[in-house]
Amino acid sequence: MTVTELPALDVAGRIDRLRERFDDTGIDALFVTRLVNVRYLTGFTGSAAFLLVGPDKVLFVTDGRYRDQAADQLAEAGVPARIEISGAEQKRIVHDAYVQAGYGRVGLEAHGVTWSQQRAFASEWFPGAELVPTEGLVEGLRRVKDAGEVARIRAACSIADQAFANVRPLLAGRPTEIDFALDLEFEMRRLGAAAMSFEPIVAAGPNGAKPHARPSGRHIEPGELLVLDFGCMVDGYCSDMTRTVSVGDPGPEARRMYEVVAESQRVGREAVREGVDCAAVDKACRDVIAEAGWADAFLHGTGHGVGLEIHEDPRVAATGKGSLAAGYVVTVEPGVYLTGIGGVRIEDTVVVTPDGCDILTGAPKELVIT
Amino acid sequence: MTVTELPALDVAGRIDRLRERFDDTGIDALFVTRLVNVRYLTGFTGSAAFLLVGPDKVLFVTDGRYRDQAADQLAEAGVPARIEISGAEQKRIVHDAYVQAGYGRVGLEAHGVTWSQQRAFASEWFPGAELVPTEGLVEGLRRVKDAGEVARIRAACSIADQAFANVRPLLAGRPTEIDFALDLEFEMRRLGAAAMSFEPIVAAGPNGAKPHARPSGRHIEPGELLVLDFGCMVDGYCSDMTRTVSVGDPGPEARRMYEVVAESQRVGREAVREGVDCAAVDKACRDVIAEAGWADAFLHGTGHGVGLEIHEDPRVAATGKGSLAAGYVVTVEPGVYLTGIGGVRIEDTVVVTPDGCDILTGAPKELVIT
Repeated sequence: MTVTELPALDVAGRIDRLRERFDDTGIDALFVTRLVNVRYLTGFTGSAAFLLVGPDKVLFVTDGRYRDQAADQLAEAGVPARIEISGAEQKRIVHDAYVQAGYGRVGLEAHGVTWSQQRAFASEWFPGAELVPTEGLVEGLRRVKDAGEVARIRAACSIADQAFANVRPLLAGRPTEIDFALDLEFEMRRLGAAAMSFEPIVAAGPNGAKPHARPSGRHIEPGELLVLDFGCMVDGYCSDMTRTVSVGDPGPEARRMYEVVAESQRVGREAVREGVDCAAVDKACRDVIAEAGWADAFLHGTGHGVGLEIHEDPRVAATGKGSLAAGYVVTVEPGVYLTGIGGVRIEDTVVVTPDGCDILTGAPKELVIT
Repeated sequence: MTVTELPALDVAGRIDRLRERFDDTGIDALFVTRLVNVRYLTGFTGSAAFLLVGPDKVLFVTDGRYRDQAADQLAEAGVPARIEISGAEQKRIVHDAYVQAGYGRVGLEAHGVTWSQQRAFASEWFPGAELVPTEGLVEGLRRVKDAGEVARIRAACSIADQAFANVRPLLAGRPTEIDFALDLEFEMRRLGAAAMSFEPIVAAGPNGAKPHARPSGRHIEPGELLVLDFGCMVDGYCSDMTRTVSVGDPGPEARRMYEVVAESQRVGREAVREGVDCAAVDKACRDVIAEAGWADAFLHGTGHGVGLEIHEDPRVAATGKGSLAAGYVVTVEPGVYLTGIGGVRIEDTVVVTPDGCDILTGAPKELVIT
């Protein structure tokens, strides 16, 4: 599916929804410097830009490389910003706009600017303003995905599904983890993925006991548990999926691990629906694994949001705050990791609905493959 | 070449050289949070760690995923640090070490911590300390490469050379820019690159007039100027090379552009030697292009350092500060960009020597290929 066949993103209303969040922080304007947030608010896909969002004005600044692209993309998205193109004069342009508008309290994305930048902003860009550290104002909006966003995540998930189906037969040839990771990656790229959403995890046998193992030169042997965690990007949006397989019978302990994790993952998926606490989904998964005696072997949280970034709000974990809302896209990915033996993790990416969830990752969940 | 065949890195002395730079800033200790700098100082290649470097002590903190790896890699590098493994207790561990050592002024990497982090460090990690914003303390050390570092950059350059030779014949088949970029990337990966050092630039015809064009779905036609800028990573170190080619004769104007840029690049390379100002190398390249009447069409600086990051100190540009020293690895990459027509850029990565430089990028520089 090409980008032009995907339903349009609903970008135009996002800046107004952002402004509604200003009151909680007491800011007059937000200086948006995280590129992914600039993209979300404006539709701009270039590699450098920032945005000064005031109560009734928006200033968008980028450099000469993106003169035409910025004008085209903001117009297409229906974002009524003043666009300024400059390399050397960016500071002066922002400073003048700030002085002219008379903003007193200017929010920065405290998690998205370096201390160096904050110091320069305070002394040179916004002298006299009170700079306010804000956290997650745009990221909070990004939790609920519109139909265009879900379509992109779904397209990325479909590519990952298809790529896995295409390269799965290669496992019979005992490839190394690195080579199989490359096969998986190349296949996703050939099928139209713009990039990987993260470096694929291909972890066989004892390597699978490390949740974030990196592919090694070790051959994947028959009868070993093999953890495959991978995803790709379509038009800026990520997919994320984990499957655990074995070429041939992995033996009774591995099969029991698989059955417990599969049950935990099923129970977790069934717990997902609008209004449910993130921590409750985590607990649903964790209880199944604890019941089997492996409470200490489930080494991470149950899931996370997925969108323009591979890890977004909300966190689906014991310490995760808040509840799920319709339109959230989250992963459900319990796992069991036994040092020296191996690991099992099963992960789907799902869209939260009023009644439950839609599963976006479609690859079969079968342990033993031939 | 596998990593184990590469000469060892000389890691052990780096922390002492870093300490020699403390005096200029008046700090008692430096809290190193940029992962690439932690790697440089300790040899640790994991994805999360930080380092508190005092006058006679080093505290290294990472999480449970890297318990064995941290111990192994720091021991192998000969770095005498106290290693602490913790997820939840990292703040307390650092705080206690800071209190016990009695540091008064603690440097942060102001370009490598977010404002959020700086605020947390000030109030919770180092309460009572004066936090000092430092810039480029470790990066300054990283400019001079040791023999092991040069060997890794050379290995990455060799992979890029070989990959280009292998996929060059595909150009006769009029691939799209995206497909040829994938071919180039896959070939570098197959030849052993761990990753790309940046997304390859494959820009044909008018697209070549944008120095940072992204590959498009446009077919690469015979007789068009084609700018190829690509590189890969070996054991953490980057390569960087640009070649401009044409499948068949691109016509007299393109040939003249190529000859001017090639001459500029040759003159630039010949200007490189220990003690020469970075700005003088830029001027040497720029003068040749200006002489040809294209001063305004050379849209960027002449080059940059290359190492653990694709863009490092020093900047080889009109505004570049300081001079070259033996062991610096820099690019020389002049270009001419004519809107609507196309671009030419030629780039080598070189090691600075007392008498000149060694060229690490070996792909032939010939415009017309068949």
